[in-house]
Amino acid sequence: MEKLNTAIFIFDDVEVLDFAGPYEVFSRTRLAPGVIARRSEETAPFKVFTIAQSAVPITATGGLRVLPDFEFASAPRIDLLIIPGGFGTRRLLENSSVLDWIKLTARQAKHVASVCTGSLLLAKAGLLGGRRATTHWASLDLLASLDSSITVERQQRFVTDGIITSAGVAAGIDMAFSLVESVCGKAVADETARYIEYQRSA
Amino acid sequence: MEKLNTAIFIFDDVEVLDFAGPYEVFSRTRLAPGVIARRSEETAPFKVFTIAQSAVPITATGGLRVLPDFEFASAPRIDLLIIPGGFGTRRLLENSSVLDWIKLTARQAKHVASVCTGSLLLAKAGLLGGRRATTHWASLDLLASLDSSITVERQQRFVTDGIITSAGVAAGIDMAFSLVESVCGKAVADETARYIEYQRSA
Repeated sequence: MEKLNTAIFIFDDVEVLDFAGPYEVFSRTRLAPGVIARRSEETAPFKVFTIAQSAVPITATGGLRVLPDFEFASAPRIDLLIIPGGFGTRRLLENSSVLDWIKLTARQAKHVASVCTGSLLLAKAGLLGGRRATTHWASLDLLASLDSSITVERQQRFVTDGIITSAGVAAGIDMAFSLVESVCGKAVADETARYIEYQRSA
Repeated sequence: MEKLNTAIFIFDDVEVLDFAGPYEVFSRTRLAPGVIARRSEETAPFKVFTIAQSAVPITATGGLRVLPDFEFASAPRIDLLIIPGGFGTRRLLENSSVLDWIKLTARQAKHVASVCTGSLLLAKAGLLGGRRATTHWASLDLLASLDSSITVERQQRFVTDGIITSAGVAAGIDMAFSLVESVCGKAVADETARYIEYQRSA
């Protein structure tokens, strides 16, 4: 079975649950049910790793320090690209290296998804033009201001329109399960939710 | 305002969401509502940090690499001790240095809580004797086998009996909100849940 290379972008002031929620969901998904299947990668459909602009530890919101697995320059093929949010996104809106990398990587990936204010970066990279999209409730107007061709959805937990965008923070967990469901089927998504004792919301 | 020093124990093969869920909840709680309050620590009731047996990066389940803020020997005062779970707990059940540290730290802390199979470590350290407690659904019998004086609760998302223990993985988020509620009140817990767009379950 060919695994989907799943890259989670991390950066200074990334919100912890924005990246850790999808990390948990994708890395614990197995095509075989139960506890034993989780002790190996054999039936894992996703190969999850973190990636940052450079290979130095990042400091997430609240101070959590994470060592990225890859830097942009050394990235393997990326099939599924996850862009989390957090206050650090504001600074990255002016970082053309990051925006260019996101644009290029997104165009080569099979699936692209954001959590929370990660969608601001997708918008600034020109990837949400003409699409329906969402973000954290406090940043809906900012998202609209970045690209007037985006239809900003204000009530949905996640929005699928070619690219998948999520509402704030914890909504990224529901987005991740939705992606698991579309790639692996509902039984696999539901069994993984049962394994991590998460109550999915649509 | 005196902040509660909140230590989250991390170790190799700790489950990502077990530590990242409570990390998110405690580190984003503010006594003042809204987005602006989250941009400083001014009204933060919890000062959250990670701690490991030694000051080297740990590798969580799935491969996420985290740099601990403190090692046991350099720990500041700990008011709230969080013990997450994960497959790595099995190995720690035979690690007397870790068990001794948990026992000593728990006795000096105001609040002690576990997520998922973190309760196995609390049980092995002798801290759950005579109490009601829970763990991940696949480890309920193992928990019972570690100390026959524990009343193992098989249906609750978290159990408060002096020490707070949680069911699997995502239940740790609900446990954390319950602790925020008992320390800071329901309004603060609910506003923080709204900020991170998490739908609490009891």
